[in-house]
Amino acid sequence: MSKALSAAPVLLIHGGAGAIARGEASAEREAAIRKDLRRSLEEGWAVLIEGGSALDAVERAVRVMEDSPCFNAGHGAALTSEGTIEHDAAIMNGRDRAAGAVSGTTRIRNPVSAARAVMELTPHVHLTGAGAEQFARQEGLPLAPPWYFFTPERLAALERVQAAKKRRTTATERDRHGTVGAVARDRAGGLAAATSTGGYANKMPGRVGDSPIIGAGTFADNRTVAFSGTGHGEIFMRLVLGHRLSCRIELEGLDLAEASRRVLDDLGAFGGTGGFIAVDHRGEIALPFNTPGMYRGIAREGHIAVAIFGDETLST
Amino acid sequence: MSKALSAAPVLLIHGGAGAIARGEASAEREAAIRKDLRRSLEEGWAVLIEGGSALDAVERAVRVMEDSPCFNAGHGAALTSEGTIEHDAAIMNGRDRAAGAVSGTTRIRNPVSAARAVMELTPHVHLTGAGAEQFARQEGLPLAPPWYFFTPERLAALERVQAAKKRRTTATERDRHGTVGAVARDRAGGLAAATSTGGYANKMPGRVGDSPIIGAGTFADNRTVAFSGTGHGEIFMRLVLGHRLSCRIELEGLDLAEASRRVLDDLGAFGGTGGFIAVDHRGEIALPFNTPGMYRGIAREGHIAVAIFGDETLST
Repeated sequence: MSKALSAAPVLLIHGGAGAIARGEASAEREAAIRKDLRRSLEEGWAVLIEGGSALDAVERAVRVMEDSPCFNAGHGAALTSEGTIEHDAAIMNGRDRAAGAVSGTTRIRNPVSAARAVMELTPHVHLTGAGAEQFARQEGLPLAPPWYFFTPERLAALERVQAAKKRRTTATERDRHGTVGAVARDRAGGLAAATSTGGYANKMPGRVGDSPIIGAGTFADNRTVAFSGTGHGEIFMRLVLGHRLSCRIELEGLDLAEASRRVLDDLGAFGGTGGFIAVDHRGEIALPFNTPGMYRGIAREGHIAVAIFGDETLST
Repeated sequence: MSKALSAAPVLLIHGGAGAIARGEASAEREAAIRKDLRRSLEEGWAVLIEGGSALDAVERAVRVMEDSPCFNAGHGAALTSEGTIEHDAAIMNGRDRAAGAVSGTTRIRNPVSAARAVMELTPHVHLTGAGAEQFARQEGLPLAPPWYFFTPERLAALERVQAAKKRRTTATERDRHGTVGAVARDRAGGLAAATSTGGYANKMPGRVGDSPIIGAGTFADNRTVAFSGTGHGEIFMRLVLGHRLSCRIELEGLDLAEASRRVLDDLGAFGGTGGFIAVDHRGEIALPFNTPGMYRGIAREGHIAVAIFGDETLST
């Protein structure tokens, strides 16, 4: 085996972080979530095990979660204050730090694939709104009618948040967070990251969160780390959290474990809640979060595991 | 004088970087550019000298350049491939790292003030497109009809770029770059940064550049530096250049001069052209660029100066 193919591949995914309490979701819903997390891992892992790129693997894994009604991305995304759905997504290749993103799209079936098309087919990194959709249409990416993205669960969540706002109480964490993402290291040692989201329930129309912002919710650099975040996006943006993790490794000289602890501390010190997944250039992994739970999973040689609650482990 | 008011205030501005050759612009146009750079400095400086905040100063300075037809922001912004104008802007307060941004707006007269309104009046950091305009309208920010933003110079630039593309030659740097920005340090030692742009001639509709991306084209942190960039935005985004400068100071322990040199090297190593302005927590300044020229200026006690070409200095 050549040196270029000697790295141990690994795939991490998340499906959102928040106040996920045992028994909050029905047994059926929890089973459905775990099943779709596992399917995302299996499909992404199939790419890596066949020698495919980290970039292909994270796109595949995220597409599965976009297509699932269980997660706040693609089909099943959160609703804005006007009851509409606006998607954000980004993808980044650690090899050359090529990046693509879309924001505020309403008709693109798989925003993560639109982000990849922006990266590969345009001179740009980020297309928003009508321009992004016009581009997707021209490139023949699958579109979907608005109703395709809606689920009764997200409408109920919007109604809960809006009712809480009228009562001047705070919405539950459950209704505020949720984003999907994947990071991977391929056999050639290449890193990639992808993130996709509907934002959060009752966001203002036009709100762009951290997911499509390179450096905030999505970042990858083969010399350091691949990162995908989920949580209070505005804090991730102000702290430039993904790039901060990379800089703590590259410029501060920390290992991934210590860098991750400090970045989670940075987030907490700003009152931010959430978590992230990360894989570094040596194949080390981190999945920290400061919320009670985070939907998450890992696939590596001989091992696929998913977890939801904070006291669950991902070990075999 | 209290310690909190003991810092020496300073204001830096830029009006774009590129292949700005002597004699390329008419003497009248060059005089108009220098006059409006000076006016931007004078108005921003008036804020600082009266004890106003760095945040107020950078907003004021950028508004003057948005209102001027000489710069690629607000009135006089670059045209998209479809002949439309789409503005991006951001502002950031180093005191609490509060940040606001708008992208893809077409009717907001002063995008930098809309960015500030996003920061101060919403729970969000970034609003795009129609959502941003709906918000601006609700808040009573001045709007303008599309024709207000157009200038014959920008239409001519679009035609040059599109003709060059048909001939499969490269457009001149002059027609690709241009963005305005300001960074300031106030008497209390507070830092702030603001950036505003029309992007560049012939950009795809929906393209979001680095200016409204916190960490890429705009960044401020009182512990480190305030940064505003201009140049090849996609490279600034992939390198997260503004936050990178901050991390080279905070995490690598470099001073502003050395950190700026390395960040400009980072940009050049990726084939990126452009420059930036920066002021650090001690009041040190940097205005590096790797293009032949950058429209720029400085205001500090007893000293206002502007420059365009690479061999000009800003000293009194």
